[in-house]
Amino acid sequence: MSVNIKRIGVLTSGGDSPGMNAAIRAVVRTCAYHNIECMGIYRGYQGMIEGDFMELGPRSVNNIINKGGTILKSARSKEFMTPEGRKKAHKHLSEAGIDALVIIGGNGSFTGGLVFNAEFNFPVIGIPGTIDNDIYGTSFTLGYDTALNTVVEVIDKIRDTASSHNRLFFVEVMGRDAGHIALNAGIGAGAEEILIPEEDMGLERLLESLKRSKASGKLSSIVVIAEGDRIGKNVFELKEYVDENMPEYDVRVSILGHMQRGGSPTCFDRVLASRLGVRAVEELLKGTSNYMVGVLKDEIVLTPLENAIKGKSQIDKELIRVSDIVSI
Amino acid sequence: MSVNIKRIGVLTSGGDSPGMNAAIRAVVRTCAYHNIECMGIYRGYQGMIEGDFMELGPRSVNNIINKGGTILKSARSKEFMTPEGRKKAHKHLSEAGIDALVIIGGNGSFTGGLVFNAEFNFPVIGIPGTIDNDIYGTSFTLGYDTALNTVVEVIDKIRDTASSHNRLFFVEVMGRDAGHIALNAGIGAGAEEILIPEEDMGLERLLESLKRSKASGKLSSIVVIAEGDRIGKNVFELKEYVDENMPEYDVRVSILGHMQRGGSPTCFDRVLASRLGVRAVEELLKGTSNYMVGVLKDEIVLTPLENAIKGKSQIDKELIRVSDIVSI
Amino acid sequence: MSVNIKRIGVLTSGGDSPGMNAAIRAVVRTCAYHNIECMGIYRGYQGMIEGDFMELGPRSVNNIINKGGTILKSARSKEFMTPEGRKKAHKHLSEAGIDALVIIGGNGSFTGGLVFNAEFNFPVIGIPGTIDNDIYGTSFTLGYDTALNTVVEVIDKIRDTASSHNRLFFVEVMGRDAGHIALNAGIGAGAEEILIPEEDMGLERLLESLKRSKASGKLSSIVVIAEGDRIGKNVFELKEYVDENMPEYDVRVSILGHMQRGGSPTCFDRVLASRLGVRAVEELLKGTSNYMVGVLKDEIVLTPLENAIKGKSQIDKELIRVSDIVSI
Amino acid sequence: MSVNIKRIGVLTSGGDSPGMNAAIRAVVRTCAYHNIECMGIYRGYQGMIEGDFMELGPRSVNNIINKGGTILKSARSKEFMTPEGRKKAHKHLSEAGIDALVIIGGNGSFTGGLVFNAEFNFPVIGIPGTIDNDIYGTSFTLGYDTALNTVVEVIDKIRDTASSHNRLFFVEVMGRDAGHIALNAGIGAGAEEILIPEEDMGLERLLESLKRSKASGKLSSIVVIAEGDRIGKNVFELKEYVDENMPEYDVRVSILGHMQRGGSPTCFDRVLASRLGVRAVEELLKGTSNYMVGVLKDEIVLTPLENAIKGKSQIDKELIRVSDIVSI
Repeated sequence: MSVNIKRIGVLTSGGDSPGMNAAIRAVVRTCAYHNIECMGIYRGYQGMIEGDFMELGPRSVNNIINKGGTILKSARSKEFMTPEGRKKAHKHLSEAGIDALVIIGGNGSFTGGLVFNAEFNFPVIGIPGTIDNDIYGTSFTLGYDTALNTVVEVIDKIRDTASSHNRLFFVEVMGRDAGHIALNAGIGAGAEEILIPEEDMGLERLLESLKRSKASGKLSSIVVIAEGDRIGKNVFELKEYVDENMPEYDVRVSILGHMQRGGSPTCFDRVLASRLGVRAVEELLKGTSNYMVGVLKDEIVLTPLENAIKGKSQIDKELIRVSDIVSI
Repeated sequence: MSVNIKRIGVLTSGGDSPGMNAAIRAVVRTCAYHNIECMGIYRGYQGMIEGDFMELGPRSVNNIINKGGTILKSARSKEFMTPEGRKKAHKHLSEAGIDALVIIGGNGSFTGGLVFNAEFNFPVIGIPGTIDNDIYGTSFTLGYDTALNTVVEVIDKIRDTASSHNRLFFVEVMGRDAGHIALNAGIGAGAEEILIPEEDMGLERLLESLKRSKASGKLSSIVVIAEGDRIGKNVFELKEYVDENMPEYDVRVSILGHMQRGGSPTCFDRVLASRLGVRAVEELLKGTSNYMVGVLKDEIVLTPLENAIKGKSQIDKELIRVSDIVSI
Repeated sequence: MSVNIKRIGVLTSGGDSPGMNAAIRAVVRTCAYHNIECMGIYRGYQGMIEGDFMELGPRSVNNIINKGGTILKSARSKEFMTPEGRKKAHKHLSEAGIDALVIIGGNGSFTGGLVFNAEFNFPVIGIPGTIDNDIYGTSFTLGYDTALNTVVEVIDKIRDTASSHNRLFFVEVMGRDAGHIALNAGIGAGAEEILIPEEDMGLERLLESLKRSKASGKLSSIVVIAEGDRIGKNVFELKEYVDENMPEYDVRVSILGHMQRGGSPTCFDRVLASRLGVRAVEELLKGTSNYMVGVLKDEIVLTPLENAIKGKSQIDKELIRVSDIVSI
Repeated sequence: MSVNIKRIGVLTSGGDSPGMNAAIRAVVRTCAYHNIECMGIYRGYQGMIEGDFMELGPRSVNNIINKGGTILKSARSKEFMTPEGRKKAHKHLSEAGIDALVIIGGNGSFTGGLVFNAEFNFPVIGIPGTIDNDIYGTSFTLGYDTALNTVVEVIDKIRDTASSHNRLFFVEVMGRDAGHIALNAGIGAGAEEILIPEEDMGLERLLESLKRSKASGKLSSIVVIAEGDRIGKNVFELKEYVDENMPEYDVRVSILGHMQRGGSPTCFDRVLASRLGVRAVEELLKGTSNYMVGVLKDEIVLTPLENAIKGKSQIDKELIRVSDIVSI
């Protein structure tokens, strides 16, 4: 490999997600495999500014592949948005002999990396880590599969009590502006209705659908709602609306919240993290910069960070039709 | 056995809890074992009023021991609070040849059973089924152990993200007026602070405790709050209060909600349900009525329903001290 | 849709796998959605021969999406391998008015379907259901993702005790002649070494690898072995071999066995099952026959059953390299 | 508190079990709470002999309450069985200023502690940590509840496939010479038959029971067997015996093995560990020695180590009757 990289820094930034530790482990061990050094940077860009680094060898990352969260911690850094902050960060990297960066995070983190690269010509490569699966250039982000399973397991529990009492539950899930979690976990959990930002269902159609569901003999119902849904009412307002219009239902609300970001990663997320971590380091060693490694059509591929940031990962519209059919 | 009971009815009433199906299975099979018949009564007292019954044989309850919820469904019945309602219920029981009742539920359900017994001299026995563990006369109610594990598993996930971001989480758990879930799951989850109805900690002491915790080097914290806690503020107001007084913390809220009522029961709840179900039927066959079967000091014991209703299951105050020590 | 199909039969055949129930549900509800009828055929081809059918409507498949196993049961049928057996089966299908078949199973099941189609010109379509992921024409079979997670969760537990005692564990996993489960779950579980049928590592290299692992500071090790591995020794012989040659290790064996076939399916398997079930029915309605529906490069695709049977799903050789690197 | 203890050592010994880390955490933090120091001793008595110690403060045990295994590792030490070995151990303890010991383990570990105390008048207190629940003086040992749930979850998965194929499974579980795990997990998993060392069922009765079960309409069966069962045949011989005598069954075997020792502890085990850890330290500070802390009849109690070792924790015979009834 042609470029002269001797020490790679790795950081996690933005919201944490399951699989980040598995990716850190892969980055660290790939460095060891290629006989280069690896430094962990704590608390994302903020730790870069503060020089909060720690040398990581292959034994430093024992027994973390199965841990949620990130051993490197994460933070949002306002200071890194200023040229002064980034200058400090660059100074610390230089002093520590770090030649290149692996950035594990989402769009915000990648934007930071691009700006940093533009200013200092510093090699950076991104690994998509977020449960929201909203990053262009990869079919799956790290943590998304784990979050789907967390949501489905929780809704399985809620369904126990929903069907024991013939209730209607509104369950709000994460996803920022994207409906990936809601749509896939909704199908997986057998939800009667799924509300996502990509489709404005409208209140009347929701009501009709619930009535049809009731008429078909269903005694209980689960409606999954993405946090960014555009139906124009939050989940508690929705409950009130249905309370008024379908008094025959006993309506309850559950907001799943931050538990969706944690937990031991699934096998899928661990393997994906391993593959992306290996590739990220090897791309840096080949001289690649400003790309994200992702998985598309079953293969590990590179996408320019610029595209990853500008683009949007589309939901599969066919899944909406599948959901309509299987919830009949 | 001296009394002439030929057909026992079994119902679940009030909030459902994991282990109810295991108890139904045990009741049904104990009837079969003693060569008497068993009828399932759907939707608690409401189904009794409507005559919504179904004969249950040993094969009817195959593969339900591991299912959350209740196959007999549950409901709250206003009509059963009226003498007319109860008269209808009695008529249906007589017509169906049901001689005695096993009532799986909480205090409200037991009260209904006592009134019914007083009016019609109808043999009833209770099995404590609620996740809240708030029933006098038993150290453990059905579903409580499962709920504790559900809460602990969720907080384990939340801790992943809390410690990745150095955050403070307020996690609200169920328990009605009792702090059993909060206290035990709080210790199990390693919570830094636990707020329960049985103790009014006061806002200042909470703040002091959080500051001490921070000073001791803890970077993230979990505070578990029972829904009936008396600190005088709901969990969102608490967040605001801490936001104002400890701006160094990034505070988040999570309300666990109904998922705590569902899920496959733990081994403990399944075994307890089996023991209580067997004993409940055998007590009815011996002529016992108006008692609850429970477990105290490792033994299955009887408590008059009247006492079960009036009494209150106390939390173990020593556990509060244990929590203070191990969260240091 | 042009063909005149009025009633579709669905069966599960061969080894059961998680997601089969979700696929049955999707098939049944897609039939309802398109206003055709659906019959469940019990115990695979054996039930077809015996006319063991049951009409299934959309409410018949409530609350099964999250259940392992198959509500239609499965069996291997010797009689179906005879022309007389198949003749009986065809007679029963005709009498029941079944016009087309959805076959959920593996290669053996598909072969049966092809033969049946050849003899009676009966429309059949296959859905790949097996944990082994060894079917050509699909990147993922139903149940494979669930099995991976089951294996990884169990090895996580084994690692607790392995690292508490500085032990070496040989863990045998399923997969018949394919190393998919071993390779992916091995990477996911952080195994030090993975033995698969596709690669003959040889005993010496295994020993060298374990010694290198020990020398690198690893105190405990997990070796994952596919049941079809060709190293020429079964897992107990392997233990003996290592006992003799590396007496410094305390070696234990764990054979995971049938638990890998059960359990509530993951979200991935539930969504995949839903997509394949919808597509299978819609293809039959379009007049398609003798194809398998699968997923390749993120899309639902058709593969002639003949190819599915003859071909072999290859492991991703790059994963072997990833495993070597991340286990350094 | 009257005795002059300034530094307590804590070790885990024998087979590891879930909850040991929670107990270590409680011991360490209780020391901090009472302003005394705590030293972790690695690899049990072997580490004591080698002086393999590490100072542990309250922050050293962050985030371990939910981890299986033991951060202090465990080992069996032959050298500690010799007076010379124990002399070395005592010398290391003295040099490190350790005044008293908390021993987390089983009977073998307690025996070691008693001998050590007899020779050097060194204060020791035991915490029962083993999944087998075979220790006299406590209704529950650390890890037992977790192991029960692990077993039940696995058998739930096996039942999926058993009932899909109408199979009979023999499932072998741990427990050394005690049937606690088999009996309780067997009831929890809904096993048709349970074979434990405390009862010699005999082969004929097993066969009769299986035939009765089949006759009653059960299509599949689970038989749980304790590893120390006295039926005189190992589990594979049992399979052969049933194969010959009940050819109508398709019999399979599953040996659960070491996974039973690992995994994140249940809430019950975590709370128990916390209570026992607090009490163990406070007893040492009060001058108590040669006792085990355990839980009996819902209360934390002391039992002389001598009695704990000599006695045997009896199974609850009533549970055998309950099992017979609910598996009808």
